[in-house]
Amino acid sequence: MRFLLDYISPYAYIAWTQVHALAERHGRTVEPVPVLFAAMLNANDTRGPAEIPAKRLYTFKDVLRTAAHLGIPLTPPAAHPFNPLLALRVTALPMPAPTRKVLIDRLFQATWGGGVGVTDRDLIDRLAAEAGVPDAVARASSLGIKQQLRDNTSRAIAEGVFGVPTVQVDGELFWGYDSFGNLDRFLSGAEAIDPDVVSRWIDLPAAARRR
Amino acid sequence: MRFLLDYISPYAYIAWTQVHALAERHGRTVEPVPVLFAAMLNANDTRGPAEIPAKRLYTFKDVLRTAAHLGIPLTPPAAHPFNPLLALRVTALPMPAPTRKVLIDRLFQATWGGGVGVTDRDLIDRLAAEAGVPDAVARASSLGIKQQLRDNTSRAIAEGVFGVPTVQVDGELFWGYDSFGNLDRFLSGAEAIDPDVVSRWIDLPAAARRR
Repeated sequence: MRFLLDYISPYAYIAWTQVHALAERHGRTVEPVPVLFAAMLNANDTRGPAEIPAKRLYTFKDVLRTAAHLGIPLTPPAAHPFNPLLALRVTALPMPAPTRKVLIDRLFQATWGGGVGVTDRDLIDRLAAEAGVPDAVARASSLGIKQQLRDNTSRAIAEGVFGVPTVQVDGELFWGYDSFGNLDRFLSGAEAIDPDVVSRWIDLPAAARRR
Repeated sequence: MRFLLDYISPYAYIAWTQVHALAERHGRTVEPVPVLFAAMLNANDTRGPAEIPAKRLYTFKDVLRTAAHLGIPLTPPAAHPFNPLLALRVTALPMPAPTRKVLIDRLFQATWGGGVGVTDRDLIDRLAAEAGVPDAVARASSLGIKQQLRDNTSRAIAEGVFGVPTVQVDGELFWGYDSFGNLDRFLSGAEAIDPDVVSRWIDLPAAARRR
């Protein structure tokens, strides 16, 4: 199953710490896909949780509560929002799957697990090298890698993704760590959705519009 | 604890079916507060889930999955979005707490539990009368009741509420049915938030802004 991530999202960090055990329980593999969340907000002409002051505070408290419940460390990076492009591009470099998992572990830890963030080029280069990806920053500046990240994001938007983290599996989307209960039941084969009810929803008329 | 609701939200319906048992487990009472979700979107200059096509479809599937898991009926009303003002004003009429619970049960059932919706004046009047609230539609048109709903909404926004359902308890917010796990632990006295980390988050600089 595909796991779409952007380091900007603490929910993506939390979900990343949990998705591997979930996949393993169902005999699935996790294919991480770096995407740019900001481009999804642009595409939908809407605002992210960190861009609405009341929601920004609430969301962080919710993240702290969930992380404490799961027993994982959570502290903010040195600045937020930050530009995640270089970290995402490094994540998109060609490398073996086990290496990519270690790299993403390191970059998420540096962002939300007690580090200072993932905007410093030297730090990203060092973390990548430690994960087994040499010359990461230099190689991540290639046109091909930049295009890869754009393509990942465009494909996700075209497939109905509007936020991170999102799991794509068997043609369905599961958005946010909060959806992992429903994802777990879906992977167990206990899908409970009546397609006729979904069709009715798709075709439903609107009786009111906000001014 | 206060339970802020708008009939427009299927998550508010789901949460309403679960909040009473949760409150009872912790010796709390539920005070339902009708608010206008659209006014919160306006205040934050953002878009609701039903206003973003991809999110509108995803959200409904998520709602269906959660309702099936909880064993509660869920079907869409005849139209969505719809104008919930009259149903919200009727809910804001003065009445005993047990009557208000029955009234809200009926109005949510009419919206998401198999009915046609809560925009028809005669239907609202009949449902309210059955719940023990006579002449509801006529009385809900008073300036005082209209102002009550506006005041509920303004107070909520001033207190940091940005969506429905929201539970307000002991100075904290819990947004969405997805937060009920954290709410349950909070009410158990297992609050895990380090105020110093929250302060750091509040004071954190932004290192990037979306164009």
